[in-house]
Amino acid sequence: MCPSRVAEGEERGWIVPIGGAEDKEMRRRILKRFVQLCGGRDADIAIIPTASKLPDTGQRYEELFDRLEAGRARSIGFASREDGERDDYLRQLETATGIFFTGGNQLRISTIIGGTPAAKLIRERNARGVHVGGTSAGASILSDHMIAFGKEGSSPRAGSVRLAPGLGLTNRFIIDQHFRQRDRLGRLVAALAFNPFVVGIGLDEDTAAFIRPDNVLEVEGSGALTVVDAGDLQFSSMADVGQNQPVCLLGLKVHILVAGATFDLNTRCASPGTLVDDKN
Amino acid sequence: MCPSRVAEGEERGWIVPIGGAEDKEMRRRILKRFVQLCGGRDADIAIIPTASKLPDTGQRYEELFDRLEAGRARSIGFASREDGERDDYLRQLETATGIFFTGGNQLRISTIIGGTPAAKLIRERNARGVHVGGTSAGASILSDHMIAFGKEGSSPRAGSVRLAPGLGLTNRFIIDQHFRQRDRLGRLVAALAFNPFVVGIGLDEDTAAFIRPDNVLEVEGSGALTVVDAGDLQFSSMADVGQNQPVCLLGLKVHILVAGATFDLNTRCASPGTLVDDKN
Repeated sequence: MCPSRVAEGEERGWIVPIGGAEDKEMRRRILKRFVQLCGGRDADIAIIPTASKLPDTGQRYEELFDRLEAGRARSIGFASREDGERDDYLRQLETATGIFFTGGNQLRISTIIGGTPAAKLIRERNARGVHVGGTSAGASILSDHMIAFGKEGSSPRAGSVRLAPGLGLTNRFIIDQHFRQRDRLGRLVAALAFNPFVVGIGLDEDTAAFIRPDNVLEVEGSGALTVVDAGDLQFSSMADVGQNQPVCLLGLKVHILVAGATFDLNTRCASPGTLVDDKN
Repeated sequence: MCPSRVAEGEERGWIVPIGGAEDKEMRRRILKRFVQLCGGRDADIAIIPTASKLPDTGQRYEELFDRLEAGRARSIGFASREDGERDDYLRQLETATGIFFTGGNQLRISTIIGGTPAAKLIRERNARGVHVGGTSAGASILSDHMIAFGKEGSSPRAGSVRLAPGLGLTNRFIIDQHFRQRDRLGRLVAALAFNPFVVGIGLDEDTAAFIRPDNVLEVEGSGALTVVDAGDLQFSSMADVGQNQPVCLLGLKVHILVAGATFDLNTRCASPGTLVDDKN
């Protein structure tokens, strides 16, 4: 899927992937910032809990956003491909100032919503300035190429990752979430080894990338965001090795960013920005 | 500890850190190559099982090297600091063509042998051409700065690693072993963040760096060797953050090497070399 075209004079909405397990009780830095971004008391947030099999996930996020004083937060229960064409659901997406995907299994989102009018509308709304965020599975789904599943905790191997098409709000990066908590560097690097065009973004839990319309991302939350940039790769043996052999990859660039730091997806330059002092 | 000076016209012995759990039953690529390096049927290998608390570790490696047809393989039971001055033990080190440290706890090696005549002699013998290898804890101990312990599976934090002085055969790198199996990237990167002078070498299990006298390392074994080079680091927040905050590090270079690939510790250049096809 390719992102919708942003019309001249307009600005794309922010794209906000979150690494999962975002703080929901204490400082709630990430969710709070998302609410503010969407307009605070004027926000109208459409929650899409489709990734989750739990019946109360949508309601839970409605309450979370309510407590953060979002103007309005209502979930849309896309449960089948037919739902992706329902007028009332589409109308809700049309008036929303922000769209939020919960966690669960990203293949539930891609198989239920992928290719429906709802998916197309989400891309179009984002191109018209509506902000789209998602946590865990909801973060993975945002990009064009998505990690469907993969092996954790090993050196990169050809067989260690499976990609699938995502919603395609951007094709600049591949997201992986619960990044350090589930030891996913190997599979993210394997994903990049197929085609170093994209940048790899590994999000720790309670950590988010707030990606501005100009494609500069700002880090928020208590963990780290690992950028893996294979753009200057000197060598990859990916095409020659067996599924279970480790892949030889020379010349990866890695940045570890924390809250306040930025990364420019256009120029691939990282900056410490104004690092947030969390000691107080 | 600094490496002993190599006299003019002489060559340092190879240094061979192994990531632990090296294959001992099947192809035994690493141990076989170590035996050949030390002279094969003319080899005289001194095994130092001090890291291990198991009483039969020394004998076990004697049998392993015997089965690989090493000329002679005898363990030296350094068990106290006094043992580090025993004439018979020192004589055994003096005649050895290779010295091998088993796994266990690297702090047992550093606290028992560190600073004794035995430690000094091992450095001197290495400078005179004797090859020194070690697996797991025995790999960590080889370098000047050693990871004593650290937290696994998190993004780099100031408090995630503790360094201690090692045997000091080289000061070019810091080793970490069982690298991907125990998810140690964060702590290795934290170690480098203190001082980007050294190169980080993460060794997977059954994977070794055969470091030549000219400081070019050759990878051997079935896993990957991850080189983390902080030499061009743009930014580190290590000096400013609390113990448990993640560290911001921009501009790390990472290479993932497999059997046959090389890395030059002088120029910090990686090469795929002649990749070994393991499919057959």
